[in-house]
Amino acid sequence: MKIVLIGAGNVGWHLGKRFHECGVEIIQVFSREESKARRLGDLINTESITDLDKVNRNADMYMLAVHDDAIGEVALKLASFGFQEKLIVHTSGATPMTVFPASLNRFGVFYPLQTFSISREPDFGNIPVCVDANSEEDLPLLNKLAFRISPKVYHITDEQRAVIHVAAVFVNNFPNYLFQVGKSILDEKKLPFEILLPLMQETVSKLNTGDPFEMQTGPAVRGDSATIKRHLSFLKKYPDYEELYKLFTESIEKAHRQ
Amino acid sequence: MKIVLIGAGNVGWHLGKRFHECGVEIIQVFSREESKARRLGDLINTESITDLDKVNRNADMYMLAVHDDAIGEVALKLASFGFQEKLIVHTSGATPMTVFPASLNRFGVFYPLQTFSISREPDFGNIPVCVDANSEEDLPLLNKLAFRISPKVYHITDEQRAVIHVAAVFVNNFPNYLFQVGKSILDEKKLPFEILLPLMQETVSKLNTGDPFEMQTGPAVRGDSATIKRHLSFLKKYPDYEELYKLFTESIEKAHRQ
Repeated sequence: MKIVLIGAGNVGWHLGKRFHECGVEIIQVFSREESKARRLGDLINTESITDLDKVNRNADMYMLAVHDDAIGEVALKLASFGFQEKLIVHTSGATPMTVFPASLNRFGVFYPLQTFSISREPDFGNIPVCVDANSEEDLPLLNKLAFRISPKVYHITDEQRAVIHVAAVFVNNFPNYLFQVGKSILDEKKLPFEILLPLMQETVSKLNTGDPFEMQTGPAVRGDSATIKRHLSFLKKYPDYEELYKLFTESIEKAHRQ
Repeated sequence: MKIVLIGAGNVGWHLGKRFHECGVEIIQVFSREESKARRLGDLINTESITDLDKVNRNADMYMLAVHDDAIGEVALKLASFGFQEKLIVHTSGATPMTVFPASLNRFGVFYPLQTFSISREPDFGNIPVCVDANSEEDLPLLNKLAFRISPKVYHITDEQRAVIHVAAVFVNNFPNYLFQVGKSILDEKKLPFEILLPLMQETVSKLNTGDPFEMQTGPAVRGDSATIKRHLSFLKKYPDYEELYKLFTESIEKAHRQ
């Protein structure tokens, strides 16, 4: 199976590298930015282009690793090339398959559920890949491709992916903000943030074997009102953090009272 | 140095085991619950007692790994034994040294900054130990003891420990609640929570080399109002989660606007 990779940002970069390492044939890489296209093309020894009109018409699959709001536009452009019988997939967790224009016959999703940055090497052996397709023939194809790069492959529908995406915001984006809050509290007292990292790692690691409800610790679940009062008094100078603290304390108390 | 360990719960159990493994002499273990006292005493081959009156008077240090609200009471009892010249320490992150009665001359803190459960083996090579003492002679002693069980030892005062404890609630207890929220959203749709674990692990691992502010991703920091609107509409049936979502979205937007 020959693939054209459209997009060479965080997701495109790491997918391109991983496909190449796993022996999947990427015949062309596209990015609007020449430096990005060439950086990836050179690394995986394939042609790089910056003009969609020059896209190779002989691929079996076109993988769109572009920003969520560019997917529809790129798909429309590919449709205008007469790619009705080509399989076109996007890599987005937040975008339903309805983004693809009605003029396309074969489309799907190839969504690696991880947060990528150029500078960090992802561990694909541990990254779930969520696949879906509009046709029953293409689903096994995407499954097979996903298993080439990861042992964890899930068939996830649009509706399910939307739910996973909301949940991911709660377990990834919001905790990260709390990490920033913790850091800023320590920074102000010139205390090193690294001192909390092992605790944070353990909080997540525990979930490999346990349930977060059972794992809940801290003053709110203990009903330790003296500590809560002391913490709130300390937080008076940080009204935003105080509000978060109160909402969490109420939420945790409520969840464990039921 | 001979140590008596008072308390054989989560913290006492793991500290006792670790001291023993590292060749630190524990001459006695106390717990009010006989089964707990004996379980640890047998494991580390030392005497176990359930009556504080039988505490060995020849130790150099008495380490109180008991509930926060029992520290004062136990310390008072030890003071009544005439332990003025013995070093007495507690292991609590939330308790200032003022908990020790004025009749004691030598006291301190030996606080391993980690969340412990009986069933999970902690990685002490990666656990910060925060020490403090009321006398300048005892601080090097506690430092030395801490370095026996961990390479990461910090001198942390009462005031600093109080700040770290607030920050720990933000980076440990509150994220754990968010993990529970994520899980409950997935559970309702019969989606496996394990699908999000690699993402959660990576969110924390990234902080070994990066700053949480720089690492922030998601719709709030992108200003992706279409996704936020879609998420809020999904969350209408979960008013508590909706409120959290709104507060986080506002907080993240505000932090990154500045």
